[in-house]
Amino acid sequence: MLDETLAAIRPADAGVLAAARAYQDRLTKPPGSLGVLEDVAVRLAGAAGVTPPPIPEPAALAIFAADHGVHAQGVSQWPQEVTAQMVANFLAGGAVANVFANQIGASVTVVDVGVKTDLPSDPTGRLLSRKIAKGTADLSLGAAMTRAQAVAAIEVGIEVARLLVADGARCLITGDMGIANTTASAALIAAFTGHHPSAVTGRGAGLGDEAYENKARVIVRALQVNPTDGQALNILMSVGGLEHAAIAGFILGAAALRVPVILDGVISGAAAMVAHGLSPASIDHCVAGHLSAEPGHRLALAHLGLRPMVRLELRLGEGTGGLLAHPLVCAAARVMHEVATFDSAGVSEK
Amino acid sequence: MLDETLAAIRPADAGVLAAARAYQDRLTKPPGSLGVLEDVAVRLAGAAGVTPPPIPEPAALAIFAADHGVHAQGVSQWPQEVTAQMVANFLAGGAVANVFANQIGASVTVVDVGVKTDLPSDPTGRLLSRKIAKGTADLSLGAAMTRAQAVAAIEVGIEVARLLVADGARCLITGDMGIANTTASAALIAAFTGHHPSAVTGRGAGLGDEAYENKARVIVRALQVNPTDGQALNILMSVGGLEHAAIAGFILGAAALRVPVILDGVISGAAAMVAHGLSPASIDHCVAGHLSAEPGHRLALAHLGLRPMVRLELRLGEGTGGLLAHPLVCAAARVMHEVATFDSAGVSEK
Repeated sequence: MLDETLAAIRPADAGVLAAARAYQDRLTKPPGSLGVLEDVAVRLAGAAGVTPPPIPEPAALAIFAADHGVHAQGVSQWPQEVTAQMVANFLAGGAVANVFANQIGASVTVVDVGVKTDLPSDPTGRLLSRKIAKGTADLSLGAAMTRAQAVAAIEVGIEVARLLVADGARCLITGDMGIANTTASAALIAAFTGHHPSAVTGRGAGLGDEAYENKARVIVRALQVNPTDGQALNILMSVGGLEHAAIAGFILGAAALRVPVILDGVISGAAAMVAHGLSPASIDHCVAGHLSAEPGHRLALAHLGLRPMVRLELRLGEGTGGLLAHPLVCAAARVMHEVATFDSAGVSEK
Repeated sequence: MLDETLAAIRPADAGVLAAARAYQDRLTKPPGSLGVLEDVAVRLAGAAGVTPPPIPEPAALAIFAADHGVHAQGVSQWPQEVTAQMVANFLAGGAVANVFANQIGASVTVVDVGVKTDLPSDPTGRLLSRKIAKGTADLSLGAAMTRAQAVAAIEVGIEVARLLVADGARCLITGDMGIANTTASAALIAAFTGHHPSAVTGRGAGLGDEAYENKARVIVRALQVNPTDGQALNILMSVGGLEHAAIAGFILGAAALRVPVILDGVISGAAAMVAHGLSPASIDHCVAGHLSAEPGHRLALAHLGLRPMVRLELRLGEGTGGLLAHPLVCAAARVMHEVATFDSAGVSEK
C-alpha cells in the first residue's frame, strides 16, 4: 500500500501554477494585494492540476492518538492516561477540536494507532481502532518502534485518507493526541534538520525550567542511542511516534489522491518531514495551517518550505490550528472562482 | 448624536475579565494553550460585560467609500474613478470583500460618505447615500475638511452602526474604499503617533520608488501646513478622509451598543486612532482583524495596544482582513461556550 501510494504522488503542475498566477492579476484588486492568500490559491491549483482549484470543502479532521514510552523519562507533567481520556472527550464532542470542527462543518475521526490503554467500544462511529502497539518503546533507550510497526502505522494513515476522501472530504486536516508527543516531535525535527535538540525543544503543554532541561537532555540521549543514516523511515522508527507515522501516511494518501492537506502544529510538522523524506512531492499538496509556539515547528516548516497561515501562539494540537486555517484556505480558493475581473466589472487599471 | 454616543461608551468590565480568564483554565486544554484566542475570548467577555461572551455572529460589513483631494498630488497610480467603479463592483457582488463576506454569511453595506462622482441609484438596497462632500480637499494644501463635515461623517458612522445592530448584527466589521486613502491614513498615523512620515508611509496599492518618495513628501507637507494640537477631531479634519471619520463613528457607535468591532487594515487602524482620541474605552470593544503590509498599520496597532489576528501581507482594504479574522474571533468565543471542563469530561490535570 505504501509503495503504490508513493508511486501515485505527482508534484504540482508547473503550467497550472503559471496560469493560476497570471489569473490572479486579472482580478479586481491591486496585483499581489491578497498577499499569502494568492500564493495559497496558486499552490492549491498547482497541486490539483487545475485552475481555478477546487474549493477545499468539506473538510475532515483525523486525530491520530498514541502513547509514548519516553513518558517514563518525566518529559511531561501530564499523566499518560490523559491520552485515552482525551480520546473519550473527542468522542463526546467536548474538546476544542470538536468545537472548531463544528464551526466549519468538518467531520472528526479519531484513530487509535497506539494508545496505551484499552479504549471502550465507541457507539458514535467516530473511533477507528487501528492499534499497532500499546504505545512506543522509550526512544531514549533505543528504537521507538520496529520497521514493521512504522510501516503499518503509515499504512493506517493512508487508509484513513482514502476512507475520508471516499466519504466526500475535499480537504484533510491533520490532528494528534498523545501525552509526550512533543518530545518525539522535537527528536524527529532535530534528526531531520540537524539542529541541536536545545533549539527544537519546547515546553510542550507547560513544563517548568527544570523539567524542560530534562526534556532536552532526553532528546540528546535519544539521538545518541539511535544513530540514523538520514533515511526517513529509519529516523521515524528510531525516535518517532505511531501518530507521527500515521500522519505521514495520511499526508501521502491525500497527496496521491490530489486532495489538499492542512497541517496542524509541531506534531504534524514533524510527521510532514517523514512524508517529505519518503516523497518530496507530497509536500506540494500541503498547506501549513499555523505556527505553533513550540520552537521546533518554525524550523520544520522552514525545512519544508512552508509558510503558516495563522500565528496565534497556539500549542494545543488536536488539529486545532489546522481547523482555524481552513476558512482562510477556502477563501483563497474562492477568490479564484468568484471575484470579478477588471474587464468583467468595468474597473480601470492603473 | 456624537456626544450622546461618547457618553454611553463603557470600558471593559474588570470583574468579568478576571472571571473569563479563570474559566479558561478550567477547560480541557493546557492552560494558555490557545494563545491569542484566549486573550480575544477574555476581551470579548470584558467588552460585553458577560462571560461567556456572546458569539459574535452574524457579522455585518460596512464599506465606507470616499475620495481624496490629495489624489491630485500623484500619490496613487490608480485613477480616481476607481472609487466609484469599485462601489459598483461591491453592489454587483464581484469584489473580494463580497466573496469573503458570503463565505461567513456577513451582510455587506456600502456607504457613500464622500465619493467624488455621482453614483447611480442602487436597486439592491446595499448602498446608503450619505455623501458629506464630493471628496475631501487636498490635505497637502490645508485642512481636508471642515469641523462640521468631520462631525457629520462621524455621525454617519454612528448611524450605520445603529442600523446594522438593529438589523440583528452581533459583530461589525470595518471596511473602506477610496483611491489615495493610504496617504490620508499615513498622515493620521504620523500625527497621532509622532512617527516621521517616512516610517508610516507605504506603497499602497503598488507604488514604484519615485512615486513612493513623492507620497512621503506630500505627507510631510500635509503635516507642515496643518499644525495640530493633538486633539483627535483637529487631526481628523486636517489630514483625514471622510471614510476615516465615518469608520471612527462606526467604532464609537458599536462600542456604545457593546457590540464588538473587527478592524480591517491600515485605514481602519488610522480611523481607530480617531475613535481612541475621542473615547479611549471604545478600543476595548475592538479586535484587530489583521496586520496590513502597510508599515503605518503596525505603529497604529501598537499605539492602540491591539494585536492582529491574521498576518498574511494583505494590502487590499475593503474589510477583507476583518472578514478573514471573523471565524477566528467566533472560534475564540465559542470555546467559552462549548468546550468541556476537566471536571465535566473526567480528564486528569497535570
